[in-house]
Amino acid sequence: MKPFLGANFLLSAKTSRRLYHEAAAEEPIFDYHCHLDPQMIADNRRFDNLAELWLGGDHYKWRAMRANGIAEEFITGAADPFDKFSAWAETVPRLIGNPLYHWTHLELRRYFGITDPLNPQSAKAVWNAANEILVRDPAFSVFGIFKKFHLYAVGTTDDPADSLEWHQRIRDEGKTETKVLPSFRPDKAIRIEKPEFAAYIAKLGESEGKTISSLEDLLEVLQKRMERFDRLGCRAADHGLGYMPQSGQDDGDENCRGGAWEKEVKETFAAALAGDTQGGKKDAAAGMRAIDSYKAFLLRFLGAQYHRLGWVMELHFQARWSINSRMLSALGPDTGFDAAQDHLMSGALIGFLDSLEKRDKLPKTILFSLNPRDYHTLGTIMGAFQGGGLGRNSQTERRLPCKIQLGPAWWFCDHRDGIEEHLRLLGNVSLLSRFTGMLTDSRSFLSYPRHEYFRRILCELLGRWAKAGEIPHDPALLEKMVRDISFGNAKAYFENLR
Amino acid sequence: MKPFLGANFLLSAKTSRRLYHEAAAEEPIFDYHCHLDPQMIADNRRFDNLAELWLGGDHYKWRAMRANGIAEEFITGAADPFDKFSAWAETVPRLIGNPLYHWTHLELRRYFGITDPLNPQSAKAVWNAANEILVRDPAFSVFGIFKKFHLYAVGTTDDPADSLEWHQRIRDEGKTETKVLPSFRPDKAIRIEKPEFAAYIAKLGESEGKTISSLEDLLEVLQKRMERFDRLGCRAADHGLGYMPQSGQDDGDENCRGGAWEKEVKETFAAALAGDTQGGKKDAAAGMRAIDSYKAFLLRFLGAQYHRLGWVMELHFQARWSINSRMLSALGPDTGFDAAQDHLMSGALIGFLDSLEKRDKLPKTILFSLNPRDYHTLGTIMGAFQGGGLGRNSQTERRLPCKIQLGPAWWFCDHRDGIEEHLRLLGNVSLLSRFTGMLTDSRSFLSYPRHEYFRRILCELLGRWAKAGEIPHDPALLEKMVRDISFGNAKAYFENLR
Amino acid sequence: MKPFLGANFLLSAKTSRRLYHEAAAEEPIFDYHCHLDPQMIADNRRFDNLAELWLGGDHYKWRAMRANGIAEEFITGAADPFDKFSAWAETVPRLIGNPLYHWTHLELRRYFGITDPLNPQSAKAVWNAANEILVRDPAFSVFGIFKKFHLYAVGTTDDPADSLEWHQRIRDEGKTETKVLPSFRPDKAIRIEKPEFAAYIAKLGESEGKTISSLEDLLEVLQKRMERFDRLGCRAADHGLGYMPQSGQDDGDENCRGGAWEKEVKETFAAALAGDTQGGKKDAAAGMRAIDSYKAFLLRFLGAQYHRLGWVMELHFQARWSINSRMLSALGPDTGFDAAQDHLMSGALIGFLDSLEKRDKLPKTILFSLNPRDYHTLGTIMGAFQGGGLGRNSQTERRLPCKIQLGPAWWFCDHRDGIEEHLRLLGNVSLLSRFTGMLTDSRSFLSYPRHEYFRRILCELLGRWAKAGEIPHDPALLEKMVRDISFGNAKAYFENLR
Repeated sequence: MKPFLGANFLLSAKTSRRLYHEAAAEEPIFDYHCHLDPQMIADNRRFDNLAELWLGGDHYKWRAMRANGIAEEFITGAADPFDKFSAWAETVPRLIGNPLYHWTHLELRRYFGITDPLNPQSAKAVWNAANEILVRDPAFSVFGIFKKFHLYAVGTTDDPADSLEWHQRIRDEGKTETKVLPSFRPDKAIRIEKPEFAAYIAKLGESEGKTISSLEDLLEVLQKRMERFDRLGCRAADHGLGYMPQSGQDDGDENCRGGAWEKEVKETFAAALAGDTQGGKKDAAAGMRAIDSYKAFLLRFLGAQYHRLGWVMELHFQARWSINSRMLSALGPDTGFDAAQDHLMSGALIGFLDSLEKRDKLPKTILFSLNPRDYHTLGTIMGAFQGGGLGRNSQTERRLPCKIQLGPAWWFCDHRDGIEEHLRLLGNVSLLSRFTGMLTDSRSFLSYPRHEYFRRILCELLGRWAKAGEIPHDPALLEKMVRDISFGNAKAYFENLR
Repeated sequence: MKPFLGANFLLSAKTSRRLYHEAAAEEPIFDYHCHLDPQMIADNRRFDNLAELWLGGDHYKWRAMRANGIAEEFITGAADPFDKFSAWAETVPRLIGNPLYHWTHLELRRYFGITDPLNPQSAKAVWNAANEILVRDPAFSVFGIFKKFHLYAVGTTDDPADSLEWHQRIRDEGKTETKVLPSFRPDKAIRIEKPEFAAYIAKLGESEGKTISSLEDLLEVLQKRMERFDRLGCRAADHGLGYMPQSGQDDGDENCRGGAWEKEVKETFAAALAGDTQGGKKDAAAGMRAIDSYKAFLLRFLGAQYHRLGWVMELHFQARWSINSRMLSALGPDTGFDAAQDHLMSGALIGFLDSLEKRDKLPKTILFSLNPRDYHTLGTIMGAFQGGGLGRNSQTERRLPCKIQLGPAWWFCDHRDGIEEHLRLLGNVSLLSRFTGMLTDSRSFLSYPRHEYFRRILCELLGRWAKAGEIPHDPALLEKMVRDISFGNAKAYFENLR
Repeated sequence: MKPFLGANFLLSAKTSRRLYHEAAAEEPIFDYHCHLDPQMIADNRRFDNLAELWLGGDHYKWRAMRANGIAEEFITGAADPFDKFSAWAETVPRLIGNPLYHWTHLELRRYFGITDPLNPQSAKAVWNAANEILVRDPAFSVFGIFKKFHLYAVGTTDDPADSLEWHQRIRDEGKTETKVLPSFRPDKAIRIEKPEFAAYIAKLGESEGKTISSLEDLLEVLQKRMERFDRLGCRAADHGLGYMPQSGQDDGDENCRGGAWEKEVKETFAAALAGDTQGGKKDAAAGMRAIDSYKAFLLRFLGAQYHRLGWVMELHFQARWSINSRMLSALGPDTGFDAAQDHLMSGALIGFLDSLEKRDKLPKTILFSLNPRDYHTLGTIMGAFQGGGLGRNSQTERRLPCKIQLGPAWWFCDHRDGIEEHLRLLGNVSLLSRFTGMLTDSRSFLSYPRHEYFRRILCELLGRWAKAGEIPHDPALLEKMVRDISFGNAKAYFENLR
């Protein structure tokens, strides 16, 4: 029987252990998609207590506490920080089988050196020990954490209308060796059905000192914002999409402009600017089609731009946000009331990728689904768009390997079983060795052990295969594979412009 | 190599064995959803022979026999009981890999002490030995079986129009310590598209001495029937739904009454009472929308009532019954010709749960899907509705833990792999330790070893995690978790009124 | 640690090893569905070099090479054969986790006795050694390969318009003991929405010296072609279907002819003959419905014919071909640009099977899905159509066991995890012991080790169950089961006319 969370946690085979300790563990982290606050980074923020740091914005934990019957007062309410922490400590033993159980204890060990399981009995001692470190340890700041965990780069998530002032300051001050890169997340420019759309478009225009009064204006401003992001090191755009919007149309020139489709979309946009949330249609179903058509058009336009800039296009599918309207009213979004949905994916996605690919405008793309039942579908679709050019026409020139990626198990899927499921799928239908690896997608500075978690699961899988004779005992080959997936592939993928 | 079905069947790790033998095995059973016949219970029925007891109504076995090429004569036909039993014995060795293989041999061991595998060679001896016990053993009656398997409670499945006379008699006579509780199953009041709907509504009215001639009447009678069920100990309502019916509407007062939706549904109901199976619509698609709208409305109304009564709402999705129309004509329903379907779930279900939750009328709810590809979707949706009040408004009051449950692997999914898949999923996206556990959903008095089967799989999972160092070696914590899932959680969940 | 791909590759338990080496390994192969070229068989073709034999038409490998960044010149282009082979050798080490890694090395071992892993370092030596065998070994011909791998039968895939001249020659010359059987693949007669449909129908008519000018003519010619195929030993029809087309209709006589449905379909067919790719409808949605209705009608008609002939109906679902239109233009179909799609299956499929079954015209049927998320749905649907007659009306006559089969893990699913997933599913919801087993679906004469791969996975599963005490230690029972699934079941199923 192995000790709880010991040095060989999740590592059963000898090769697994060697691969983890001698290769994976020492690789830097390229956390290419997260939700860290650029201002907190620029400020090199320190933290008052474990409740603030751990529970302040972590809706994963809030959700688990609610499921455990904890009253809202102790979750997002006005209760005393220690009482909130105690409510969390009471919940933790109930989380056996959940990744929060592993993450929580990994974080206590890796950040604070605390090895006791957290529970109501240990709560007070853990609270005191951790808070003392938070206050006393000079290294316990954002930059200190970046250094400790070998953060090569972090990609934040930024609105096109954002001034990027904090990113500018981080860059100007140069106080951390970690590359802090903005990512372009134009969700609000796409969600045309929202009542706040017109106001957002006005704000977006202001960011470039321009009034947006037509689709033409919108595309122009978005393009200028992309240039601005690019100058500050942006390497990726990120989209949160419930599903891939469908449009029956596919015309337009090689830059995805002009044609009957654009004409139709112009009208939908004009209606939305005038405050119509049904795209100018009386009939609800026709309105939904017009809205989807606008979204599909804008995504295709943006995709072609990302291709031009050499950016990565990250598409996150199947999230359905804020499904509990009572709690949305009470607490607002991103408070733990989201779910995975089950839309059909293949039809619209194939049309979208093909429309870009046939114009040689398909950018580097990472497909994420919040519903693992899509992995196989996405994995096989992606295989049909590999090897395409990034502006290349030569038949003999080498291509970027695995230009299209299947994003790692994410959010509700980011657990031991989900990570293994994803890695196996990727191996079975694609080239696992070319995978760009893990990200945290987190709002928390304490989430870096999730990379360790991922790497252990990866090494365990390879080690078990080697032990069973399913792959050769070729240490150099396997070590390289592990290092590439841990870090090298992501670095090459995001830093490669073409 | 371990002996077949030995004491440590399915238990490979030491902790698994300890957890099963020292904790899980001794817990009582709360079989909260089954299809036992209340009259057979009231009569404390005894059984003539193994064919009657085992093959008489078990469409799982019939289905397997048909797949094995057995002629219908020996399945549901007029063949001699022993010949039917022999046909089953011939089929059993062909069932390696199927849960029926395990269940059959567990039942032979636990009820009759027979350890030989059943096959054509052993058939005669097994037949004789089992039948002798059936005839001679005074404990081999319904109440004897309940006692032997520590049945704390069984929940039968009863139509709202049922007189509940047998439940009344069981309660009045008090001959068993097992609580025998009715469950409210209003499927026939919901399936408005069926030709027999109007006749059923007439029968339902008679149960309260009232003629139902409007939607108003229907809701009133249903409410009275619920009171009657409640007085006889009913703690749950159960719904068999192919899919969650969708309606674009969500108006009505805090009791889910009134508004444009109810007005529309009134007309659909009136048309159905007049014998129209298309809800009064000429167009088939419009008829289907009207029918779904009626169903969604009625479900929401019932949900609010269940909330008021403190009942549990069990929703069974994705069953498609009697898909072989030739055999439906020949043998009627529930004869082994059903399947899992693949409707999309998230859209309509989110709307339904939210409509109740926003009125603070969402009852305790168990979501079942006959299609495991829905588990992740349902598990994440459920997480967004935890922690809501059961009539509570206080921000500081403790809530019922895991008010929304994901029902156990069921029917076609109720096998070793399916049970483990469900438990892992539940752990990954929710609180496994709060799971209300297993049920048989069975028509047979021989199915209680399925609880043993479930508990072994549960203990094996936890024991393997402990062995691998993924969870702490905390015997008290793990034992409590196992006892809770085996029995304690279900007891607390069903007996808790608020 | 086991040696790479050693004698006990994939076999961890003692019983697994015994079952494989003493039972499975010696069974012949019934490769009932493949895409081998009948002319190459008739010619008893020999091969010039490993690039031609291995890379010439294998779009699985092409796809992997593209994902690895290899330029098209070295995949389907004009590069030198050894340079292409080198590009493949460079890709292979990147394929760890992919079935191509196992297949490649199994093929090198079983055909050429080469045990070194293929990589850039070993490429030259492997090339030389293999090519020497290709040239020198007199047994290295099609018939030699058939003999070496104990091919009892192969089923090719043939168009109804095909003259079957090569099949006739193979039969007339009698130079191989392997049965080479045509399979009837009428996809082109079903894809009425294709621009080339009318031209194909003309060609089909010519094959019987008849002008097809009406639906009536089409059905008559198809029937005559089926007779021709049947005389040359055809035992199966095969359909490539993106999804099961739906039609709201189900009328027609016991032979699935006549009625309002046929009348509607006649018009659709007439419009298509006149070149209309929207089935004579102006509205695109109405056109799609008309097209699906035609397809559903034709499938039902054909199904009844297959039943009459005692053929097996193979339905392959969820493939979406040639989704990359740029590469389709450049290279044509079947070049590695296909994917799995995610259509909903249950509704239309249940209607189709029931429509045949109620007329007692449901043939032996194998359901394949390219999307594993359908396995459970298909497996439970199939269970409701077992035991039906093949023209039988007797209640007492024994039926063909598992008349409806769930086809093996196929194409993108045909990997270790996918094969195990399929076998487990089949065990859980059906009778694994009655499974007709593996096929290659391959265009390559080097793919027979995939049967070995499958059998090892099967034996491993059974052996692990025996080791864990989940099934009895009954060597005769398990050996028979393994032999049946490896070969016996397929032989009985395809050779049984009724």
